[in-house]
Amino acid sequence: MKRVYNFNAGPSAMPLEVLQEVQAEFLDFQHTGMSIVEISHRSAAYQAMQDDVKATLRRFLSIPDGYAVIFMQGGGSMQFVMHAANFLKRKGGYINTGVWSDKAMKAAQFFGTTYEVASSKGDGFTYIPSPDTFSVQDGTDYVYITSNNTIHGTEWQTYPSFDVPLFCDMSSDFLSRPFDVSNFDFVYAGAQKNVGPAGVVVGIIKEELLKQARTDLPDMLKYQTYVDKDSTYNTPPVFGIYFVGKVLHWLEDHGGLAAMASRNKEKADLVYSVLDSSDGFYRGHARKDSRSRMNVTFNLPSPELEAEFAAKAAEKGLIGLKGHRSIGGCRASLYNAVTLEGCQALADFMETFRQNH
Amino acid sequence: MKRVYNFNAGPSAMPLEVLQEVQAEFLDFQHTGMSIVEISHRSAAYQAMQDDVKATLRRFLSIPDGYAVIFMQGGGSMQFVMHAANFLKRKGGYINTGVWSDKAMKAAQFFGTTYEVASSKGDGFTYIPSPDTFSVQDGTDYVYITSNNTIHGTEWQTYPSFDVPLFCDMSSDFLSRPFDVSNFDFVYAGAQKNVGPAGVVVGIIKEELLKQARTDLPDMLKYQTYVDKDSTYNTPPVFGIYFVGKVLHWLEDHGGLAAMASRNKEKADLVYSVLDSSDGFYRGHARKDSRSRMNVTFNLPSPELEAEFAAKAAEKGLIGLKGHRSIGGCRASLYNAVTLEGCQALADFMETFRQNH
Repeated sequence: MKRVYNFNAGPSAMPLEVLQEVQAEFLDFQHTGMSIVEISHRSAAYQAMQDDVKATLRRFLSIPDGYAVIFMQGGGSMQFVMHAANFLKRKGGYINTGVWSDKAMKAAQFFGTTYEVASSKGDGFTYIPSPDTFSVQDGTDYVYITSNNTIHGTEWQTYPSFDVPLFCDMSSDFLSRPFDVSNFDFVYAGAQKNVGPAGVVVGIIKEELLKQARTDLPDMLKYQTYVDKDSTYNTPPVFGIYFVGKVLHWLEDHGGLAAMASRNKEKADLVYSVLDSSDGFYRGHARKDSRSRMNVTFNLPSPELEAEFAAKAAEKGLIGLKGHRSIGGCRASLYNAVTLEGCQALADFMETFRQNH
Repeated sequence: MKRVYNFNAGPSAMPLEVLQEVQAEFLDFQHTGMSIVEISHRSAAYQAMQDDVKATLRRFLSIPDGYAVIFMQGGGSMQFVMHAANFLKRKGGYINTGVWSDKAMKAAQFFGTTYEVASSKGDGFTYIPSPDTFSVQDGTDYVYITSNNTIHGTEWQTYPSFDVPLFCDMSSDFLSRPFDVSNFDFVYAGAQKNVGPAGVVVGIIKEELLKQARTDLPDMLKYQTYVDKDSTYNTPPVFGIYFVGKVLHWLEDHGGLAAMASRNKEKADLVYSVLDSSDGFYRGHARKDSRSRMNVTFNLPSPELEAEFAAKAAEKGLIGLKGHRSIGGCRASLYNAVTLEGCQALADFMETFRQNH
């Protein structure tokens, strides 16, 4: 069996051990005589599995009491709608660091007024704005940030704090490093980067915050429903939640979040060092102080060379290096399951490609 | 490997051949060197797969030009919200045949006025109302029906027609029999019964209808977005869509929808005949003219006997026979992937259980 080095931005590489485990038990989940895709979400086997996923995540992130863990569908994009549906009453403040926060702000405008607390839009989203540029207006319901910007290759190095609730779209670097849950009121992550297949969103929400939520929404749009019904108001995305659990156990077996963070830094450093020593052949999109450890975005001297780069890399089994269609260029996504060996292979390829051009 | 007879109401039994195929290629999707859960939804391999799922469904149901096939998330319950968000302007008419249409109507009330075109609620949802009881008011935007009621065990035997657009939640009998798409303006189905794992909703929508949709909604709530962006406005539930494709090909290999319909009738007849010849030991919930071929719901002489029935059945490897918590009793779900052999085993067990009590 051939396995490639997968640098896709999401859906993306998953740990081989997890894939093998899922495969091995695909016809018989925990001796139920049924596949995981066949078990009832009202069964004891399902409930035990979901309880374990939640407990593992709580242990992993030291989630304090007073926060609920929920599972939803619709990807980050449905959260662009739901966060505002629930909590936008007067004004929502956004730190605009890329396409995703821009979309969240636009979706929120259906429910009320939004404004930018800070933005790097005028500079091509090349950096995370510094705290001295933040301007939070009176009457702000929440501040919303995107922890990592897949398209632009920037990432919050340390998180800000505010006097109002802080929401964070952590889709693309969730569980790639430790973070302090208590700094946030609502964190959500589409799974399809570091933690599982597309189709499940993990949410961590402060129960105190829920008291401020709108109560007249349809049940499926209310976070309260997911908390009250333990994410099984309707049929949850069973396979996705199960898979997230497998990834959590894999993370635990591999040293947990601190180990993952240091490995991810090592991986990213490998690739960024090629950029920095390339005499301008590879030009990083992100400002150095805002560099993402998850998505390394860069340009070559011409679009033709970029196309050649991605094509030649694919021939060598290095897949997914084309940049997002909105900004072009190249991108290497280095999520948890991308191996150090894969990053070394990429760095070597980049070095050789540069020398040949 | 032990496999049980799975009578769960959803998630539910899937064809063994499909499970085996998914398992076999789980580490390497179509020689990409990646698992299906790792491939990018912007890749040629993904697009070819999704195109094939759509083309197979179109062929299967003879979907006319002017209808789009879309894939969404959030289950039927999110459609309870979306259909009204898009199309409820003046009044939505509902034929209320069970818990699901009741919930759809309730969710719709966030967006406007709803009313019952007909209802069997006063009679415990034991039947599908007859056309001579339908009362469609002036100014009705659409009539909404639920084709099969999993909880109550009733099913439309033939579909009604109206002068206004007809919407149908076909979640629990989609692809269990042929139907004429052109009779409907919008049909949707959560996959987790006859066609795949939980987490993907298949929609078939008339493009003409879209012209009447609200245009000020957030993108993720607009059907137009899914049509315009070919269901990849954001990351779709890749694994679910892929799995649906496998099931479609399995259906095709097993004679298509006509064959499936006659097999489903044969299966249901087997179980209903035990009810009907049990001298009242098994009492069917549904009126005979409204019986579902998908979900056979029945009571035994006492709740204690019902509990004993489900427990004893489980010991024999007949799983999922407890009724829905909202009405109690027993339920056997006989979706496409439940075998005739499984239904025979159930009928035999029921016969023996009755004789022993």
